[in-house]
Amino acid sequence: MKAERVLRSISGFRWGGIKIGLKDETLDFGCLSADRVCRAAAVFTRNNFPGAPIVVGREHIANGRLQAIVVNSKNANVATGLQGIEAARNMARWMGESLNVRAEDVLPSSTGVIGRPLDTKKIQEGCRQIVPQMGEDAAHIEAFARAIMTTDHHPKWASLQVGDATLMGVAKGAGMVEPNMATMLAYIVTDAAVPAERLPSLLREAVDASFNRISIDTDTSTSDTAVVLANGEKNVDEQQFSEALQAVCLDLAQQIARDGEGATKLIELTISGAPNREVALKFGKAVINSPLVKTAIYGADPNWGRLVMAIGKVFEHPVQLADLKIWFGSDAEGRLCMDTSSANDASLLELLRERLRREHVFLEISVGAGPARETVWGCDLSEGYIVENAYYTT
Amino acid sequence: MKAERVLRSISGFRWGGIKIGLKDETLDFGCLSADRVCRAAAVFTRNNFPGAPIVVGREHIANGRLQAIVVNSKNANVATGLQGIEAARNMARWMGESLNVRAEDVLPSSTGVIGRPLDTKKIQEGCRQIVPQMGEDAAHIEAFARAIMTTDHHPKWASLQVGDATLMGVAKGAGMVEPNMATMLAYIVTDAAVPAERLPSLLREAVDASFNRISIDTDTSTSDTAVVLANGEKNVDEQQFSEALQAVCLDLAQQIARDGEGATKLIELTISGAPNREVALKFGKAVINSPLVKTAIYGADPNWGRLVMAIGKVFEHPVQLADLKIWFGSDAEGRLCMDTSSANDASLLELLRERLRREHVFLEISVGAGPARETVWGCDLSEGYIVENAYYTT
Repeated sequence: MKAERVLRSISGFRWGGIKIGLKDETLDFGCLSADRVCRAAAVFTRNNFPGAPIVVGREHIANGRLQAIVVNSKNANVATGLQGIEAARNMARWMGESLNVRAEDVLPSSTGVIGRPLDTKKIQEGCRQIVPQMGEDAAHIEAFARAIMTTDHHPKWASLQVGDATLMGVAKGAGMVEPNMATMLAYIVTDAAVPAERLPSLLREAVDASFNRISIDTDTSTSDTAVVLANGEKNVDEQQFSEALQAVCLDLAQQIARDGEGATKLIELTISGAPNREVALKFGKAVINSPLVKTAIYGADPNWGRLVMAIGKVFEHPVQLADLKIWFGSDAEGRLCMDTSSANDASLLELLRERLRREHVFLEISVGAGPARETVWGCDLSEGYIVENAYYTT
Repeated sequence: MKAERVLRSISGFRWGGIKIGLKDETLDFGCLSADRVCRAAAVFTRNNFPGAPIVVGREHIANGRLQAIVVNSKNANVATGLQGIEAARNMARWMGESLNVRAEDVLPSSTGVIGRPLDTKKIQEGCRQIVPQMGEDAAHIEAFARAIMTTDHHPKWASLQVGDATLMGVAKGAGMVEPNMATMLAYIVTDAAVPAERLPSLLREAVDASFNRISIDTDTSTSDTAVVLANGEKNVDEQQFSEALQAVCLDLAQQIARDGEGATKLIELTISGAPNREVALKFGKAVINSPLVKTAIYGADPNWGRLVMAIGKVFEHPVQLADLKIWFGSDAEGRLCMDTSSANDASLLELLRERLRREHVFLEISVGAGPARETVWGCDLSEGYIVENAYYTT
């Protein structure tokens, strides 16, 4: 199943995004609300200093139900102590009051700079102002998607119909992205009727197959959150729903990788022939995170030896050089196999350069005769990453 | 003990560096030779695809003796199969013939691009040409130090006298540097008399306290090598020699970190209050390798929240936020403690910016009340890293 980058309204879910002026003139405050209490599941960052909204969010999601999500960008409300926790609690309470929803059914989210007190006056005012500006249609979903952006260049959404039901997902994330058992901000709503007790594991599986497969810069955010809200209107086949949820998450994850800070290319890397899934993913992450691999792909430099280096730095899983096979390009483009015998073949190197100049670069590395085959996604590393991150708070 | 960046001749050791034209017009071939067989020890990369010279070098060092080292830059002779092993063996043999030294007493070394056949004709010719151009004085040591450079901006050396004996070390390394139980290329010679059986463990200790404490880009080279040759002329106190060896290695390691590809600053980070050394180093590496920390320091951006994030992504060792203390600046500069309460203090942030603009940036992060205190070194991440690595083979 493949998700589409289409804004799909779902009856019963209202969205909105406004500007409350936390930092500059861009949208910075969003709300998503259902007309009834939904079954809900969430996964959060594994970073040991989770943001205050994560601490509060874990409490609010504990009973498996939510009715609304309130988000601000520009300030992550992280490392802000008890005062930050209080701010996150108030944010949920104020939004609940405006929407006439119980505070415990509101998930607060914040993303942006770490270690600065949140301007709660502006947040409180935002909770009042946003309600009349919320609605069900595409423009409202887009405003929400834009309000949660930080260094993202593009808003991110993906949707899919599965039987009578619809899934609509919105995400943000461009830096500090190496999700680990969790992700950046991703919100998925659906009118599907999914058994409440199954929703957490379905989300977990979808996240493992998508957001946990991408890396932009090895840094694991303190604010990562993925949430799904299901209002239960439409009956669906659970297996089909599970595939659809995975497809939406995977599409959002790829959008995040492609929109990585300074990134010019999406890298899709498959590790094949590994003894098992865990080892395949370890090799995959070593390659996709290597700054030398990322810069070579940025420059379309046919320096395939750096892939050898990156596979070799997974010390605990030695591979025989004779068992290592490296291909560039998709089936459609024609796959090129690189090794020392071809290293001085000028026409082959030119073909390889041409593959590396595309916006979606395909790599496959076979590490043996094992059964595991896993794919991960990343992005190249350019001067743009440096420029965006060198003066972030200045 | 502190090493000095001085070229010191040691009687009995001759050095040389010449151009054999492997890639461009720079020096690319070096040799270092003793007038007698020396006690020797070496540590090599842990990368699972070690270069061919490492494979041959491990054989040659096995008996704890060496008399010469022959090195080329511009081509690492890695991932080159049996043909590459043959080339490394021949390189040692040809150099031995020219020097009248047994081939097994010559350590071959290569550094540069991975996956291209070595031009053995030029190597063979170089082994002949270099001998008459070798000598004991400073200019010869400098020529050797320059001949082993790849993307290094500066040649690197450090020396020290210990009692009557002298240690002279030369190193290279600027990218693909996260040494792991080994390092880039570092050669140390001494006239000290050190028991042969003690030399390997003294080198291992020195490497663990120096080269294994630096990181430029998380990528572990396939060519890392550190070697010490001792010709046994001068008696020394073993403890003093051990300290001197560490001091020379530490100074070379800091030169490598400071000269990291695109680096503008040396970062010196101390982790204190950790439960043990291993955990302290894990935190240290997480911070020093974080691209978001490195870019913020490059831009002198007082974004200390990124240090919180980096400590928090060491999932297996949670720290209470209340136990986390972050200081910027050395004792001499005046240390600044940063936390949320000071986050909006404009004059403090300006002082912090000023600390971050220096060429040597000092950080200390205390993670608790434990006894361990360890220091690591790294560098900032600038556009220069991207530019140097995007078109390396093009």
